Amino acid sequence: MQKHNFSAGPAVLPASVLREAARAAANYQGMGLSLLELSHRGPEFTAIIEEANALMSELLNLPDGYRVVWLTGGASTQFYQVPMNLLNEDETAAYVNSGVWADKAIKEAKVFGNVQVLASSKEQNFTHIPKGYKIPKDVKYLHLTSNNTIYGTQLHKFPKSPVPIVCDMSSDFLSRPVDVSNFGLIYAGAQKNLGPAGTTAVIVREDMLGTVRRHLPSMLDYRTFIKENSLYNTPPVFPIYVSMLTLRWIKKNGGLKGMQRRNKTKAALLYNEIDNNPLFRGTVETADRSLMNICFVMEEKYAALEDDFMKICKANGLVGLKGHRSVGGFRASTYNALPKKSVQALVDLMQDFAKRKA
Amino acid sequence: MQKHNFSAGPAVLPASVLREAARAAANYQGMGLSLLELSHRGPEFTAIIEEANALMSELLNLPDGYRVVWLTGGASTQFYQVPMNLLNEDETAAYVNSGVWADKAIKEAKVFGNVQVLASSKEQNFTHIPKGYKIPKDVKYLHLTSNNTIYGTQLHKFPKSPVPIVCDMSSDFLSRPVDVSNFGLIYAGAQKNLGPAGTTAVIVREDMLGTVRRHLPSMLDYRTFIKENSLYNTPPVFPIYVSMLTLRWIKKNGGLKGMQRRNKTKAALLYNEIDNNPLFRGTVETADRSLMNICFVMEEKYAALEDDFMKICKANGLVGLKGHRSVGGFRASTYNALPKKSVQALVDLMQDFAKRKA
Repeated sequence: MQKHNFSAGPAVLPASVLREAARAAANYQGMGLSLLELSHRGPEFTAIIEEANALMSELLNLPDGYRVVWLTGGASTQFYQVPMNLLNEDETAAYVNSGVWADKAIKEAKVFGNVQVLASSKEQNFTHIPKGYKIPKDVKYLHLTSNNTIYGTQLHKFPKSPVPIVCDMSSDFLSRPVDVSNFGLIYAGAQKNLGPAGTTAVIVREDMLGTVRRHLPSMLDYRTFIKENSLYNTPPVFPIYVSMLTLRWIKKNGGLKGMQRRNKTKAALLYNEIDNNPLFRGTVETADRSLMNICFVMEEKYAALEDDFMKICKANGLVGLKGHRSVGGFRASTYNALPKKSVQALVDLMQDFAKRKA
Repeated sequence: MQKHNFSAGPAVLPASVLREAARAAANYQGMGLSLLELSHRGPEFTAIIEEANALMSELLNLPDGYRVVWLTGGASTQFYQVPMNLLNEDETAAYVNSGVWADKAIKEAKVFGNVQVLASSKEQNFTHIPKGYKIPKDVKYLHLTSNNTIYGTQLHKFPKSPVPIVCDMSSDFLSRPVDVSNFGLIYAGAQKNLGPAGTTAVIVREDMLGTVRRHLPSMLDYRTFIKENSLYNTPPVFPIYVSMLTLRWIKKNGGLKGMQRRNKTKAALLYNEIDNNPLFRGTVETADRSLMNICFVMEEKYAALEDDFMKICKANGLVGLKGHRSVGGFRASTYNALPKKSVQALVDLMQDFAKRKA
């Protein structure tokens, strides 16, 4: 049975990428060796990481002065590594609290300096993106989360900021064009649009670095990885390789504009169904709806049908649709690699279910 | 052509493990989904990490009070994470400097507390394991490196210590039985005997933790990973899976005693040839010779033949034999998964070369 993978992350990857990844795990380029057992200092991995960096630079149209590094530990590591590298104890950083991950980023940053929370939608269970705040001129940076995986909200327009923006783009990285020159630092765990779990991409404007007085362990200093081209120590070879394959796939499929077009089409299809189907309703403010994670629940009077519908989805090969426990209901993650036909399969089931139950 | 992979790391993995890893990357257990796109919160990965922990516990015969956690960032991350978690600023840790990695561990530890270097073989280019030092009773821990990948030395007998031993076992982890109760903490980057690059195993006695006064970021506090069973955030799913497969393979092949037997046989075969072949000589003191990384060079008067021999090795499918630049010559890494026939192939080439050139 054809599977449709709506998982929030680790998430669906392009079928062609998975085929090539499997081949590389068995026998890399016909060498008679698996990529899993090749030295990271050899010509094969050097070519991989160089191509990954070049593709990242090309797809994001990276301006001069920006560098890409490949780290580990996910966005959760960036929550402390960012302030550790950017914020002195007597300085202040501004944060916008748009979800649990932003909340954790705030908590970790407080240890390294002062944190000013400019706005929060926590009281409304993060059903919208906080807006209307004023960004102080005297803070070191402004931290934003561009997409909130759990709640299904997305920042569709970045604010004009007098200070560098640091952005956690984990769950919408590479899903649309962004003007990187508006950012001082961007980070993203790979396991949504970029690749499998096990690596984290950080894009940083070099002049952001070197201003903190504290001692940084070598492995936590971004400059170590810039200097050594992400090869200071053994990097996560296979996750970086699969990310490189995914970057190739993005390029081949129209780059970030192509991704945005695909993602808009898919999201419109599903949101349209949610809005028109009598059984379901969306959970977030329309203006802030995410194109990556589409959250919806049963209308109250049909709440008892939730399990039924989930079973029907499973029986039809649609997996990963369970909403996060803090929201409930359903969450369809529609990352770059999710084919439109998967969204159509979900919409068809919703329509059929409504015909029978509404 | 059959390849023989003598790479120092990432290194050879068992052929059966690589086949199964490749299948999982294509289609995990016939689910119609790749393991690379499965949620780390789903039943599939839960089963994987639980089996990995159970196998680790069984193979190492873990005593009560010890916990296994799966981290990222390699041993280089442990160089700072260990003292950050164990050493207060006014306390002292003892280190033995047996190689470049031990040297880096010392450098990173100095930032967090006092470091007393009990012994060092740095002046002799680390050609032996430092011995004959006295371990002070009033230090917080003693840090050792059990195997020095670059130089090919190995600690064959751990000292009796009045303080907990912290050991970097990256390059001989799971290669022989160890009495874990002699250690307070053991760490190992996966990419030698455990699995592919991308995860690090840490085994810690729980009562070692919670004695430092400094603030620890959540992701750097071992207790976070103990509490959350290594699932505080998204772990490196695929590297952990392949490590679990390798643990299964170790169990099936006689456990750590079986590994030790294999490794002794292979190392004896090669060291015997090095000692008897007129063209080659070993580079380290006999008593400290590693069973994992076997370093040798051409005798001085045959030095000009080095490139020749390397070419012959490559032409015969023997790869990864180049010695580290700080030692030169050859390094044959003979980790658990390297078959005896690969060592025999090298020995045969050495004998043939000697017949023609000596």
